[in-house]
Amino acid sequence: MKTEEFAFTSIAELAPLIQKKEVSPLEVTQAHLDRIDRLNDEYLAYLTILGDAALAEARSAEQEIVNGQYRGPLHGIPIALKDLFAVKGVRMTCGSKILADHIAESDATVVTRLRQAGTILLGKLNMHEFAWGGTSLNPHYGTPRNPWDRTRLPGGSSGGSAVAMAAGLALGTLGTDTGGSVRIPASLSGIVGLKPTYGRVSRFGVYPLSHSCDHVGPMVRTVADAAIFLHAIAGPDPNDPTASAAAVPDYTATLKEDIRGLRLGVPQEYFFEDVEPAVREGVQAAIQHLSSLGATVEAVSIPSMQHVIASSTAIIAAEAYEIHARTMQTRSQDYGADVRTRLLLGACVQAAQYLKAQRFRSLLRQEMLDLLGRVDALVTPTTVLAASRIDQPTVTIDDKEFPVAAHIARATRPFNMTGLPAISVPCGFTPDGLPVGLQIVGRPFEEATVLHLAYAYEQSTAWHERHPA
Amino acid sequence: MKTEEFAFTSIAELAPLIQKKEVSPLEVTQAHLDRIDRLNDEYLAYLTILGDAALAEARSAEQEIVNGQYRGPLHGIPIALKDLFAVKGVRMTCGSKILADHIAESDATVVTRLRQAGTILLGKLNMHEFAWGGTSLNPHYGTPRNPWDRTRLPGGSSGGSAVAMAAGLALGTLGTDTGGSVRIPASLSGIVGLKPTYGRVSRFGVYPLSHSCDHVGPMVRTVADAAIFLHAIAGPDPNDPTASAAAVPDYTATLKEDIRGLRLGVPQEYFFEDVEPAVREGVQAAIQHLSSLGATVEAVSIPSMQHVIASSTAIIAAEAYEIHARTMQTRSQDYGADVRTRLLLGACVQAAQYLKAQRFRSLLRQEMLDLLGRVDALVTPTTVLAASRIDQPTVTIDDKEFPVAAHIARATRPFNMTGLPAISVPCGFTPDGLPVGLQIVGRPFEEATVLHLAYAYEQSTAWHERHPA
Repeated sequence: MKTEEFAFTSIAELAPLIQKKEVSPLEVTQAHLDRIDRLNDEYLAYLTILGDAALAEARSAEQEIVNGQYRGPLHGIPIALKDLFAVKGVRMTCGSKILADHIAESDATVVTRLRQAGTILLGKLNMHEFAWGGTSLNPHYGTPRNPWDRTRLPGGSSGGSAVAMAAGLALGTLGTDTGGSVRIPASLSGIVGLKPTYGRVSRFGVYPLSHSCDHVGPMVRTVADAAIFLHAIAGPDPNDPTASAAAVPDYTATLKEDIRGLRLGVPQEYFFEDVEPAVREGVQAAIQHLSSLGATVEAVSIPSMQHVIASSTAIIAAEAYEIHARTMQTRSQDYGADVRTRLLLGACVQAAQYLKAQRFRSLLRQEMLDLLGRVDALVTPTTVLAASRIDQPTVTIDDKEFPVAAHIARATRPFNMTGLPAISVPCGFTPDGLPVGLQIVGRPFEEATVLHLAYAYEQSTAWHERHPA
Repeated sequence: MKTEEFAFTSIAELAPLIQKKEVSPLEVTQAHLDRIDRLNDEYLAYLTILGDAALAEARSAEQEIVNGQYRGPLHGIPIALKDLFAVKGVRMTCGSKILADHIAESDATVVTRLRQAGTILLGKLNMHEFAWGGTSLNPHYGTPRNPWDRTRLPGGSSGGSAVAMAAGLALGTLGTDTGGSVRIPASLSGIVGLKPTYGRVSRFGVYPLSHSCDHVGPMVRTVADAAIFLHAIAGPDPNDPTASAAAVPDYTATLKEDIRGLRLGVPQEYFFEDVEPAVREGVQAAIQHLSSLGATVEAVSIPSMQHVIASSTAIIAAEAYEIHARTMQTRSQDYGADVRTRLLLGACVQAAQYLKAQRFRSLLRQEMLDLLGRVDALVTPTTVLAASRIDQPTVTIDDKEFPVAAHIARATRPFNMTGLPAISVPCGFTPDGLPVGLQIVGRPFEEATVLHLAYAYEQSTAWHERHPA
């Protein structure tokens, strides 16, 4: 494998070569640092680059592997983290001016677990300020660029993570997803993004946006890599009471190409309304393809969908304001205009409205659970639009105009409300050459089913093999 | 046993006589209906009297017992319910004008269970409007009178339940407790009131005040009766997802007079501050008495107590407003002035304040659980004041003036916030002849310990044998 090829390989492909000592973690890390050095000014993916530290970690991994102490598929793999995961002694900005000089005092639980798996940390990634937005437009550090068209957004809030993957600047990344922030940038940047079940992955040491909606998840190049990453980070954590004690299966072992007999539900209303035609076509073709592989497909209905935007906005805004209330009193001018406005909205949410939204949420979840008693998974578009231009605040679909910032999360938010596991997998391109994402949603703690379906789709298509020019 | 003696007996005393057919459920029921007929205009305990239905139930119970189908200690026992428990076909006012003509369509789960245990329902009891107040001052139906001094409040919100017990107008009652509404009237009216652990008893069919603070509990004459009642009503309920699946022990079997070696914690700050001197003396003497029985007593500290009133007010007010929001928009003038004011306060609670209060609540609960790792129970006054005059909105303690409506719940509210089981048991009288209550608080789902301690105290004192003139 040539040095430049490391940049677009998958972890699953590279790991055996590292294990067999055919490829050195040091050369893989150096190749990535070289690319970051050369390309980051253009892409704005990284906010902090840990060059020397990464090389030291790579040397240490190499030494262990030479000594026969191979830890597993993440050993010697250079990764990067959205800049809201705490890494001891490293700056953590959360994409904000307010935390521009903040140094984390200890490692997040997922960081500890990735270290234990032997990963090498290349740096910290750009993001929407405090993770509160689906575009990654960032007034403080500049907006990370979509590698498929640098005039366009990568999606957010984990925009830097998606850009790092799509531009070949890391072999794997972690993001967080409160309303779609893993899946939206995965969809818009043509990579794989997995939001696990609420509680599947510890959030200790992860800067919160909304306690009841936040999820941590991998953003990677292939479904197999998502399985490897999830296995490394999932499981209970005494430091996070919301982390579930549910057993963590070996997700890699259950990846299969045979999906015959699996039942898929396609919710027509809401998810297929106000969708860009090219996105709709791409997703419908993908569903057709899943059917051709032997899955059964049926139209299904979720009666309460129409209240999901208002309810999730009330919940996220209120929970975010509770976290930022003190800073808003002293430094409101240091927030970006969009985030400040949303925080002010959060300050206006009445407790009774919040409680009503939570009550609606229970109802919605029950409707989805009932539906998932009849089908194994739901399939929808991940985003109802492809990547829009950075300078374009609205998008017109079927002669209707929508604000990008809100419309971008339409199809992802429902699954933060209900906590169900959901993956975005590339499923085509628009005529403009922009990626389209397919969302697959499963039952609580059944990430294996979601990964299985995504894997079967991916392995029988070639979308994941394309890279930006 | 003479007919008039039925009125002040305990269930535990009467049940064996009913079982042995020495006393008939019909004569017990008739004796109670006669007393209600004679005394209710004076006490205002009952809002609805179910004379004929009660007699029919009594005849049916009598027939079963004669036929050898004795169900257990509640068989043939005439009881009454706070007027927010749904009884199919019976008016349920919640003490309000708004629901003055409301007829319940089905039985609450606890009503079903009490029916299965063979109880006879005498009627529905007066209360603070919508259970939102600790006094039972009621502008719609009149205020139930404290049997120890009819110029004084019985306490609330389950005031009618306490009056029915203290005045000999039922053999057992159920109340609800959101900030102390079982324990406060128990304390002020000289009876036993038990708030079980949050989730121990189903709330299906019980008109809610605050979903996260509401508890259902027995209000009875003795600790043994509380054990009998709790055993009949506790346990999981498919209709109430908050009802715990935890096993329900036989509470009667674990009542013992020997408390040697049990460790009691006395939280000095907060619970013994701003307490009426006669109440403080009564409670301190009771703690001394428990010590003399062989319990160890130590002073303990709960650091976060000072925030409990503000936090619990935000939570209860917000949750109550969410329930009443629609009615407040159409019929606000039909609420009593005090409840309307509190609902308006609830409308003003910001979601972020609510969330902050819930976060405080977790902290407070953890502090109490840590403490209950070292001691078996906490002991405090139930109320920091004895029954005040109906026409007296404030009370002066050590030259400081307090509003009765707020101060009355000072010592009970913390255990709605933390969901811990708590009992109030009579522990003396003020120089004015007003009852004083001792509160005993245990670990989650350890009602048995609370009952054990209360039983030992009760059996070695004679307070429960006194009745109002």
